Amino acid sequence: MTRRTSADAALRARAAAVIPGGMYGHESTALLPAEFPQFFSRAKGARLWDADGNAYIDLMCAYGPNLLGYCDPEIDAAFTTQLAHGDAMTGPSPLIVELAEELTQQVAHAQWALFCKNGTDATSMAVTVARAHTKRRKILVAKGAYHGAAAWCTPNPIGTLPDDRAHLIPFAYNDVASLERAAREAEGDLAGVLVSPFKHDGFVDQELPARAFAHAVRSVCDRAKALLIMDEVRGGFRLSRSGSWTHLGVEPDLSAWGKCLANGHPLSALLGSEVARAAASRIYTTGSFWFAAAPMAAALATLRRIRETDYLERMQRLGAQLREGLAKAAAASGYTLRQTGPPQMPQILFADDPDFRRGFAFTGELVQRGVYLHPWHNNFVCAALSEDDVREVLGAAEEAFAAVRRREGTLVPHARVKAMVGV
Amino acid sequence: MTRRTSADAALRARAAAVIPGGMYGHESTALLPAEFPQFFSRAKGARLWDADGNAYIDLMCAYGPNLLGYCDPEIDAAFTTQLAHGDAMTGPSPLIVELAEELTQQVAHAQWALFCKNGTDATSMAVTVARAHTKRRKILVAKGAYHGAAAWCTPNPIGTLPDDRAHLIPFAYNDVASLERAAREAEGDLAGVLVSPFKHDGFVDQELPARAFAHAVRSVCDRAKALLIMDEVRGGFRLSRSGSWTHLGVEPDLSAWGKCLANGHPLSALLGSEVARAAASRIYTTGSFWFAAAPMAAALATLRRIRETDYLERMQRLGAQLREGLAKAAAASGYTLRQTGPPQMPQILFADDPDFRRGFAFTGELVQRGVYLHPWHNNFVCAALSEDDVREVLGAAEEAFAAVRRREGTLVPHARVKAMVGV
Repeated sequence: MTRRTSADAALRARAAAVIPGGMYGHESTALLPAEFPQFFSRAKGARLWDADGNAYIDLMCAYGPNLLGYCDPEIDAAFTTQLAHGDAMTGPSPLIVELAEELTQQVAHAQWALFCKNGTDATSMAVTVARAHTKRRKILVAKGAYHGAAAWCTPNPIGTLPDDRAHLIPFAYNDVASLERAAREAEGDLAGVLVSPFKHDGFVDQELPARAFAHAVRSVCDRAKALLIMDEVRGGFRLSRSGSWTHLGVEPDLSAWGKCLANGHPLSALLGSEVARAAASRIYTTGSFWFAAAPMAAALATLRRIRETDYLERMQRLGAQLREGLAKAAAASGYTLRQTGPPQMPQILFADDPDFRRGFAFTGELVQRGVYLHPWHNNFVCAALSEDDVREVLGAAEEAFAAVRRREGTLVPHARVKAMVGV
Repeated sequence: MTRRTSADAALRARAAAVIPGGMYGHESTALLPAEFPQFFSRAKGARLWDADGNAYIDLMCAYGPNLLGYCDPEIDAAFTTQLAHGDAMTGPSPLIVELAEELTQQVAHAQWALFCKNGTDATSMAVTVARAHTKRRKILVAKGAYHGAAAWCTPNPIGTLPDDRAHLIPFAYNDVASLERAAREAEGDLAGVLVSPFKHDGFVDQELPARAFAHAVRSVCDRAKALLIMDEVRGGFRLSRSGSWTHLGVEPDLSAWGKCLANGHPLSALLGSEVARAAASRIYTTGSFWFAAAPMAAALATLRRIRETDYLERMQRLGAQLREGLAKAAAASGYTLRQTGPPQMPQILFADDPDFRRGFAFTGELVQRGVYLHPWHNNFVCAALSEDDVREVLGAAEEAFAAVRRREGTLVPHARVKAMVGV
């Protein structure tokens, strides 16, 4: 554990001068244990190297974009080959058509596609299409769900206005009665229901969707002729090779995709069913880099791997091994974990840890042993992870649990997290 | 003029099935002459090749991103070298600090930077920071100005709500009395004034900022302790190596950048002065690809060229040659042009052409002669354009003006454009 940290510290000091708060957004370490590095210089497969050269097995996958491994040779070759021909040009390349065709083949409900850059672009566009289609205003959203960081959806409303979210009505995920209540509140003005494929909120246990809930969402939309919008940005292609609720027999009208769509290259998309096509053709939204060809080449290569390899079963299997091994390692030090969500997108919390002091101590110990695991956000398994990697993670976890046990009496919570969770 | 168009036609037919309306956003040809190709396969320097292999001297520069030439070897080498090390990772790379440092050196008012992907991300974030800083709501914006395509600013409000733009107050660009009136309307609730460095609206003549207007914008903000937000997304680094109003003695508090910041690689930024730093550190907005390292490497390489070469003077000189030559070529066929805006971002309209039929015929003739010039949006000169290219454009223009003259009696306006301009 003789980790170098001086380069990271020096960069933080420089960043404090030129970046507000020293860093911003979801990749800031402000809500992470002090041991976590802020800056990374290299990534390959399932591994990351920080600015000091320390290596990590990375279970965050860039918060999702890394699906098949960082710097995947096949996907990056597709990307750079197209880059040498042209990327952002005065018009789109033929790849936009090819990619729209492939995605509408791949995702059961999809009949058309619009491409953008941020996941938030796709969820925002979905809301606009739902309102254009229905000529109504209200959107039902699950309390605490993350659907992006624009003014209408950011979890931190500082600088936004009540007007920005005036027509959102909350319901509780997996709670049919609450959903129905919200739908009644929107009566006559319901444009759509925006929902994640499973509950993947920060700081809490994840919940897979109950079949009855999924069908209730569909039926609320059908009754009101409103649109069901699935937010696949985080879960898409990590849960299924098609839509994430296809296995439940529920298809959305619109689905928002991003993150791993091009295995880390910047691309997001709104997919839609026939019913929403006319409205989608009437709205206006765009971006300087939305038509760029190289990320679309990478997405086509990613889709081929999604179709032709066992990437999904591999992530599920390794995620299950990780889950089982972590439970055992925790027990060996007298801890119980709450491991929720799909094993390939695991939320890993301590059972008795209301202010997260144990989780922070554990992941802080882990990161010093070369494993990057998030203490309150769901983690991500990528297909480049190996069984050896899982064994390495579990070895580190065993030591880390034991270290936390030794420190039990002296653990203190992270001040900002304590304030946030209000314990 | 034996141009192939069959590949473009085939792609349009396929696109009609999988993309709403066949194409969307600013790169759709729906509001362009029928002769314009929709799809491009290759780009190099100042040239584009469409899906049929026809070559064009491109005066649109991807609507701005192309500043130094498509596929610039030096900039793309910086990009791909970083790509091979890591791009979107679980945290930012050291390049985010380096780039923030360089930009705060380069742009006079800037003390800090936040990076994002779309120009709209940067303008939206600016509005959020202004509201967080002032705890007020009203934003003054020039009528008809384009500041992005989110719900609060898209020029086509279909699917958006009045609430989305409830606190925008319009004024007329370059009209101090109108600005003052808008400021009085916002009295006590003014968060900021959002303004472009010059008036670069579609379908109309461009206007450079009057010095008195620029100073009035600053003084309205100062009196109310509101923030001056400069939208540099389109004009940034094409008008100046620093802020676009620095030569007028006016500095903004916030400036939004995008498009050419990384010479076509996807990157945008919000820069800010010290006064806005605290507010910028309190807001929350983010995106999956905002911290990606490769576009930041490209931006650093672009900034070196901005500092060390005569790219700007070269664009100004070639833009001036183009302007002078086009005026002559038009006159030779008995036409007068209205050429407005900075010569390196020229708006080129016909003097007597209320429904744009002549401009559409002219640019339609031009595109068939290998020159891509936009009939109603400002064009862009890039530093890869040569004097030979300008001569080639002018030769084509001479023929195109003559061809329009021959067709004068039979010209008809583009149906959708005619409806839009309401003539």
